[in-house]
Amino acid sequence: MPQQDRAYATREAILLAAAEEFDRLGYDRTSLTAVLARAGLTKGAFYFHFPSKEAVAAALIERQGELWAEVRETWRARGADPLTALHGMFVESADRMAADVVLRAGVRLNADREIGYPGVPSTHVMWEKLIGTYLADAADRGHLLPGVDPEAVARTLCGAALGARLISSATTSCADFPDRIREVLGHVLPCVATAGWKLPGSQSASEGPIRP
Amino acid sequence: MPQQDRAYATREAILLAAAEEFDRLGYDRTSLTAVLARAGLTKGAFYFHFPSKEAVAAALIERQGELWAEVRETWRARGADPLTALHGMFVESADRMAADVVLRAGVRLNADREIGYPGVPSTHVMWEKLIGTYLADAADRGHLLPGVDPEAVARTLCGAALGARLISSATTSCADFPDRIREVLGHVLPCVATAGWKLPGSQSASEGPIRP
Repeated sequence: MPQQDRAYATREAILLAAAEEFDRLGYDRTSLTAVLARAGLTKGAFYFHFPSKEAVAAALIERQGELWAEVRETWRARGADPLTALHGMFVESADRMAADVVLRAGVRLNADREIGYPGVPSTHVMWEKLIGTYLADAADRGHLLPGVDPEAVARTLCGAALGARLISSATTSCADFPDRIREVLGHVLPCVATAGWKLPGSQSASEGPIRP
Repeated sequence: MPQQDRAYATREAILLAAAEEFDRLGYDRTSLTAVLARAGLTKGAFYFHFPSKEAVAAALIERQGELWAEVRETWRARGADPLTALHGMFVESADRMAADVVLRAGVRLNADREIGYPGVPSTHVMWEKLIGTYLADAADRGHLLPGVDPEAVARTLCGAALGARLISSATTSCADFPDRIREVLGHVLPCVATAGWKLPGSQSASEGPIRP
């Protein structure tokens, strides 16, 4: 293997081993020793790539941030109506997280920064705002029932997604996270959408899907 | 103050000071020194009442457990239909938690035991089962729409309540937790209930409330 490829492979091995520990134990309880043992690497090899445990965590957080931008862009390019795009983004995110411990660790590390520490700028408030823009867009297009508050729906969906992830993580290592997310979306979106909007994947079309 | 009253007051002062620290920082990051400084007590006074930080945490967890039993019993005695009882218990719990740091700390300590540590017997699974019994009861009485899975609704509600608590705790010290819980219930219950069931506090009665 050329030296550059080997360096890349080592860096990825560190990220994977660290992700497996962070995903199970969170930041505080993860030890560098356990990460190195898992990856079968020496401290020297580690410090060639990362100056600290914090730096590995930062790399994992950055990676999950890039992925969300990518998922959003994919759904924007598809030109779906805002509720369908929101549904698709939640489901796709959950599917990817269930399958990818590196992504899962990044999400946990990012969320944990806030949950344990009051006063940290709120990632979740940022997500609520972002998801609120999709729902406000849906409202503008007449896809939400009268009296439905787009911001309140955004709060419900964000909270439900966070709670579903944590329970799923604690009980099934996120294996049932996609099912839980589909349940949340199925319990909330049809309740706030006008009759013309069809829950993706559902059998019960009412008047056919809304045009984007 | 008689000695017995003074001892009781000191014990309560320790519980309150510890609750304030646990609520803000969680178990791991709370130091006994900070708790004593907050309560204005010496180590000697502390150890007269509790052998360790762990013992104070256990007392707070026990106290919140007792309260839930009490809330459930109150709602059972009222003889409301299961969906109304479920709604009432969620709202009452959220109201109490927003107002009471001792309760909030107990809930956080109890939940944190699981969230950070995979494999710990799941409090959340226990809650999902308990809430599932109310929804199964509602289904048996014909209060849920055909095709609605009571267990899936229980999972959605439990996850949404957990997420709402965590976001509310991180952003407003749980001040907006009651509003968030009302939003969750308003977004989910009317969606899964038959038309005869009326969301408590809502203006839009359809055919009058369901009989218990």
